Amino acid sequence: MSLLVLGTVALDDVKTPCGIRNNMLGGSASHFSMAARLFTKVNLVAIVGSDFPKKYFRFFEDKGIDVSSLHRAEGKTFHWEGEYKKEDLNKALTIATEIGVLTTNFIPRITDAQRRIPYVFLANIDPEIQLELLRLVRTQKLVGVDSMNLWINIKRKPLEKLLKKVDLFVANDGEARLLSGENNLIRAAKYLRNMGPKFVVVKKGEHGVLFFSDRFMFSFPAYPIERVVDPTGAGDTFAGGLMGYLAKAGRINEMAFKRAVLYATTIASFNVQGFGVTKTENLTMPVVNGRLKELIKFIS
Amino acid sequence: MSLLVLGTVALDDVKTPCGIRNNMLGGSASHFSMAARLFTKVNLVAIVGSDFPKKYFRFFEDKGIDVSSLHRAEGKTFHWEGEYKKEDLNKALTIATEIGVLTTNFIPRITDAQRRIPYVFLANIDPEIQLELLRLVRTQKLVGVDSMNLWINIKRKPLEKLLKKVDLFVANDGEARLLSGENNLIRAAKYLRNMGPKFVVVKKGEHGVLFFSDRFMFSFPAYPIERVVDPTGAGDTFAGGLMGYLAKAGRINEMAFKRAVLYATTIASFNVQGFGVTKTENLTMPVVNGRLKELIKFIS
Repeated sequence: MSLLVLGTVALDDVKTPCGIRNNMLGGSASHFSMAARLFTKVNLVAIVGSDFPKKYFRFFEDKGIDVSSLHRAEGKTFHWEGEYKKEDLNKALTIATEIGVLTTNFIPRITDAQRRIPYVFLANIDPEIQLELLRLVRTQKLVGVDSMNLWINIKRKPLEKLLKKVDLFVANDGEARLLSGENNLIRAAKYLRNMGPKFVVVKKGEHGVLFFSDRFMFSFPAYPIERVVDPTGAGDTFAGGLMGYLAKAGRINEMAFKRAVLYATTIASFNVQGFGVTKTENLTMPVVNGRLKELIKFIS
Repeated sequence: MSLLVLGTVALDDVKTPCGIRNNMLGGSASHFSMAARLFTKVNLVAIVGSDFPKKYFRFFEDKGIDVSSLHRAEGKTFHWEGEYKKEDLNKALTIATEIGVLTTNFIPRITDAQRRIPYVFLANIDPEIQLELLRLVRTQKLVGVDSMNLWINIKRKPLEKLLKKVDLFVANDGEARLLSGENNLIRAAKYLRNMGPKFVVVKKGEHGVLFFSDRFMFSFPAYPIERVVDPTGAGDTFAGGLMGYLAKAGRINEMAFKRAVLYATTIASFNVQGFGVTKTENLTMPVVNGRLKELIKFIS
C-alpha cells in the first residue's frame, strides 16, 4: 500500500569530523523518502523556496517518489546548519536555522487521491502543520508521527493534541525523556502511550531501539558502524524504513513491527556512513537484505 | 568446573533516589560471587579489616562460597561511599573511598588446590594485586579481568601488562573509551583486543552489551527495568553471571558466550532492583530462568 509523508525538504550545511558539506539536500521528508521508497510508493508533502534546485524534483521522481504535493513558493528553502563534534557524534549542535518558506504559514495541500492513502507519516515539522495535514486525510490504516525537542518546548499544546490522534510515535531517547519528564525510558514510553499513540518507538542512536505497545515490547541493538560520517537524518531514515516496510506488509502486528524495526535499523545504518542522502539514494533491496542478514546474525 | 575470583569485599554507604544505606556488604568480589554461585563453586579471594562483621563470613558460606582465601587483617575494611542522582542513575558519584587494609600492600594468598582452579576472574581491584594473583595460578582455561577508570588513569602500565596475560576483558563503555582513546565502541573494542584479550565485552548499562572476538561479535539489549533502586555492583554481578555460566558450561565458543551474556544480563537486572546484594543473595535458578525467558522474548 502507498505511503504519504509530510515533513521538511531542506538545504543543509553540515560539519562533522569527516568533513564539511554545504547546501546538501536534507530535511526530514527527504531522508524518510529515501528509505521508504525501497518498499512502496512514497508521496511527498513539503514546501521549498524559489532557491531550491529544480534538479532535486527530478531526483525524487527518478527514485519513484510522487512530488505532486512538493510545493514551491517565493522565498528561501528551509535551511539547517549543524555540527557534530568528535566527542559525541550522536548529538547535533544547531549552528543556524533559517525557516524560510516555512514561516509563511505553510498549509499543506494534497491531491484528492492522496487523501485516501492508508499509511501516513508526519515527519519532524511544526506540529500545527502536522495537525493541518491530519485534517485532510481520510480513514487511514496507520498514522505515525515524529517530533523534536524544539516543538516539545515551544509547541507542547498542539503536539499533545496531535498525539491524541495518531497510532505510532517515533521519538528519540532525549525527546521521550523531555516530553514525559521521566528519565527511565520504560516509564517514559508508558507516559507517551498514555498521551495517545498505541505504539511507541524510542530510538537510542548507536544503542538501538525500544518498542512498546499494550500487548508486547521488544528491543534491538543497532547495526555496529565503525566510522560514522554524518548522522543527520538517521532518525528520519529509520522512520522511513519502518513505515515503508509496514505499508508494504499491509499488516500491523508484533511480527510486522519487529521486521519493520530491523529493516529500519539496517537502512539507518547506511545513512550515517555518508553525508546527507549519499548512502541511501542508491540503496537497493539486495544490498539492504545483505546487511539485514548480518544484523540478524549479530543480535541472535 | 569451579571458579576463583579476586576482588574487593567492602562496606558501602550508598545514596540513591530510592534511599540511603550504610555499611552494606559490597565490593566487586561480593557482587560477583552472588551471581556466579548460581552456576558453580566460587572461591573468593579478598581481604577485609578487623571491623568486618563476622556474620558475613557465615553469609558467604551459606551461599556455598569458599572463604578459605577471604583474609582478615588488622585495620579497616575497604569502604566506598557513593551517590546516584535521579538525572543519571547510570553514573556513580564517589563521595569518599577509604582504602583501609588494601593500603597495606595486600598480597593475595590462595590454597594449593585453588591454584589449579580452571576459571579465574580478576574483579575490579588494583591491577598490581591482579597481577600478583595471576602469578599464583596454574594452567587456567579462562582468565577474565575487570578494571575501572581510576586504574586506567593512575596504573596504566601494570594494567597493560595484565591485559597481555588474560583471555577476557569485561569493561564498561566509559572504561573502553578511556583506555582506547576511541569514542566509537567498535573501534575501542578492537583496540582493547589488540592489547591482549581475545574476548572483549563492553557493558553499556541500560543499553545492553557488545561482545567482540576475532571470529564473531554480537550485541544484546539489557532487560528493561522500570525502577532502578541501586546500580552499585551491576557490572560485577554481570561478570559473575558470565563467568559462572562459562565455568559451568565448560565450553568456550560463540554459543556459550551468547548464553553466558544472556544469563549475565538477566542476573544483573535483579541486582539493580535492590540495595547492595539484597536482590541477588536469595536468587534461585528457577527465578533467573523465568526472567531469562522474558528477556529472550523481548529481544528476539
